Amino acid sequence: MDCWEGRVLNIIEIIKCKRDQKELSTEQIDFFIKEYSNGNISDYQASSLLMAIYLNGMSEREIYDLTIAMARSGEIVDLSDIPGIKVDKHSTGGIGDKVTMVLMPLVAACGVPVAKMSGRGLGYTQGTIDKLEAIPGFRTNIDMDEFKRNVRRIGISIIGQSDRIALADKKIYALRDVTGTVESIPLIASSIMSKKIAAGSDKILLEVTCGSGAFMENEIRARVLAQTMVGIGKRAGKETIAAITNMNQPLGKYVGNALETMEAIETLKGNGERDVVTVCSILGAHMLRLAGVDDSVVNNIKRIQGKIDSGEGLEKFREFVSRQWGDSRVIDNPESLMTAKFKIPVNALDNGFVSSMEAKNIGQAVVNIGGGRQKKDDAIDYAVGIELAKKIGDEVKAGEPLMYIHTNKETDGLMQVEMLRKSVQISNEPVEKIKEILDIIE
Amino acid sequence: MDCWEGRVLNIIEIIKCKRDQKELSTEQIDFFIKEYSNGNISDYQASSLLMAIYLNGMSEREIYDLTIAMARSGEIVDLSDIPGIKVDKHSTGGIGDKVTMVLMPLVAACGVPVAKMSGRGLGYTQGTIDKLEAIPGFRTNIDMDEFKRNVRRIGISIIGQSDRIALADKKIYALRDVTGTVESIPLIASSIMSKKIAAGSDKILLEVTCGSGAFMENEIRARVLAQTMVGIGKRAGKETIAAITNMNQPLGKYVGNALETMEAIETLKGNGERDVVTVCSILGAHMLRLAGVDDSVVNNIKRIQGKIDSGEGLEKFREFVSRQWGDSRVIDNPESLMTAKFKIPVNALDNGFVSSMEAKNIGQAVVNIGGGRQKKDDAIDYAVGIELAKKIGDEVKAGEPLMYIHTNKETDGLMQVEMLRKSVQISNEPVEKIKEILDIIE
Repeated sequence: MDCWEGRVLNIIEIIKCKRDQKELSTEQIDFFIKEYSNGNISDYQASSLLMAIYLNGMSEREIYDLTIAMARSGEIVDLSDIPGIKVDKHSTGGIGDKVTMVLMPLVAACGVPVAKMSGRGLGYTQGTIDKLEAIPGFRTNIDMDEFKRNVRRIGISIIGQSDRIALADKKIYALRDVTGTVESIPLIASSIMSKKIAAGSDKILLEVTCGSGAFMENEIRARVLAQTMVGIGKRAGKETIAAITNMNQPLGKYVGNALETMEAIETLKGNGERDVVTVCSILGAHMLRLAGVDDSVVNNIKRIQGKIDSGEGLEKFREFVSRQWGDSRVIDNPESLMTAKFKIPVNALDNGFVSSMEAKNIGQAVVNIGGGRQKKDDAIDYAVGIELAKKIGDEVKAGEPLMYIHTNKETDGLMQVEMLRKSVQISNEPVEKIKEILDIIE
Repeated sequence: MDCWEGRVLNIIEIIKCKRDQKELSTEQIDFFIKEYSNGNISDYQASSLLMAIYLNGMSEREIYDLTIAMARSGEIVDLSDIPGIKVDKHSTGGIGDKVTMVLMPLVAACGVPVAKMSGRGLGYTQGTIDKLEAIPGFRTNIDMDEFKRNVRRIGISIIGQSDRIALADKKIYALRDVTGTVESIPLIASSIMSKKIAAGSDKILLEVTCGSGAFMENEIRARVLAQTMVGIGKRAGKETIAAITNMNQPLGKYVGNALETMEAIETLKGNGERDVVTVCSILGAHMLRLAGVDDSVVNNIKRIQGKIDSGEGLEKFREFVSRQWGDSRVIDNPESLMTAKFKIPVNALDNGFVSSMEAKNIGQAVVNIGGGRQKKDDAIDYAVGIELAKKIGDEVKAGEPLMYIHTNKETDGLMQVEMLRKSVQISNEPVEKIKEILDIIE
């Protein structure tokens, strides 16, 4: 039921509509976003409405309207002067998730333009921009002209997310953070999609992580979030596919900015961990599908795989790094990125099989030793991180290392040992390896 | 389930507890009220919590804790130096509700001390203080010493509600008003009872109005509110009785400050309308019960009735008025209070029986002609109001007056006629008179 019914737009009436489980009209949602952005609606009224949305939910139509209103509240990037179908890729965040870094050059090597706008990491997850900036000289604070020029010339570029994108989302996110209204699917979905829609690409591939190292711990909620975002993309005329990926353990072998960049390079060289290669192949295949390269996922997986085998992905990455002012010598010598002074083992106390991991704790340990941000303006120590020696399903003997802490401050590293040891559960019975991709939603 | 579990007190955690339908601990509620009063919790966090309380409710224990925390946030009046059991009386507000003015002297005449702290009217209901101030010279802004001295000497006094009572309630009420969180039973009950508990009397009689002229239009909700408040009183060691009264039409014959005072005096003289006398007798009887005069309601009704018949109630009112600097000549000449320049009839257009009234519109009309406040600091024209010629169940002929508008500005009065005419529904079939008291909750 529409709650507006031609009445005068008024924030208290809007709050009462949502509080009373009625559907907000497009006009009401536009009014809220516009007037809140302008400062004509107070924070205390916005937070009351956000809590009502949190508890009473929103219809698909309301979520779409909220997304569009937030996208329009800031700058909308125009990529139409770049030829070809531009496919954006976004992850809801994970531990050791270096997929974007690997995927971008592989997809670009297949002839699909990659124009990636990306945010920085906060809390226990790190951002792609931070990881790439671990390469000496690499710059992401380039201007829009340079960004587009790169995409046109070499088919790939990355730029830090503009402060002027989806302004209302920024204001609302800051408020949600301090008013207990973060974990709401309508609010999460509209926040992510408003930025993706404003970022100007034609199609969107989403990686919705779930499990102990993801914001969505619960698979059912991850699926609902994925479906919601795919629905928004569809309504907005930007075809969207979401992969539900398993984040019950970190992806690959390394967690930490420079360490993950090193691992991404090794993966492009054909030395990747099985799980990283699987996720990159399948996600890459769907990006190629979205870009209209081939409708067959199997063929596209072969294409992606071929770009690893031929070294074209690696060469594209080299070009990309050079273009963005990075020192491309790291590509021939990726171990040069592993510079932390200390490598502290975390040993198992029991024999058995690794049965589960508290992946969030591993991400948090990286923050604790300086590799991530507690607050937005914290400086990062790119070199530090965690190296996993065992993953779920692996057999382990008492005294064997489960992982290593790479740190520049020995004491800080030692302080993480006990927490990290407890983050790995060991079972007496053999345990199966976990499946990396749980579903594709489209 | 307790949501605190020894964790650090933190407003975001408190919001999340209530959001997730968990019970807040006493410590969490105390922390919220204390820190919000101090300005350490922001309005946007408070409003988020209030919306979560609105939508997820509160247990009896939580409501009690909230009430006590708010009562303690300001001054607590100490009436212990006044001998006897002090019974407070509070109404949730109605149209033409002059019960308090009639009850106070009758109960005092029965030897029960009446120490009444009262607020002013806002919106479509008027306050007892405003009504009494229609008497020339009458003062309610006396100090606490004078107030207590009056009660000790003549057994009765009234004082304007101190600004220092239940400070947190004041702040929270202002926030609820602009964030769509007014109509919540836990929040209404705790707001009323925090002020009653802080006002220092031993026992409390509540009049919970319901119907078209009351804040609670729905009888079921009025009952829940009454039960909730009686429960709070019990837990606080202040025995509380609530009468559910019918506010589907104004009580008595007049609505408006001076007109109601005139009607109160007439009632004390034995010339009261049947409905006013009924409500005053029954409520008065329960006040006497609370004060320990007699457990029999029937006997107490006779006692109250006796104080009307003997004129002792009227004499107590005269003493009361004199003591509070009022001109007691109005008691011998109550029509002197009826001074509005114009008396405009509102005539019926059809023959039939009055079947229902929009009592709120009648209250609003009084505000519109200057007899009430839209905003807290508005001045009041005491003389204006509405005189009812017909009530529910009465037969009416087309052209006969349904009511009269007493106004000092003819145009303002004429502007109300059509709205008031539409506020009275006329049926072809005979209609029963309404029952004044729907239930007694204790």
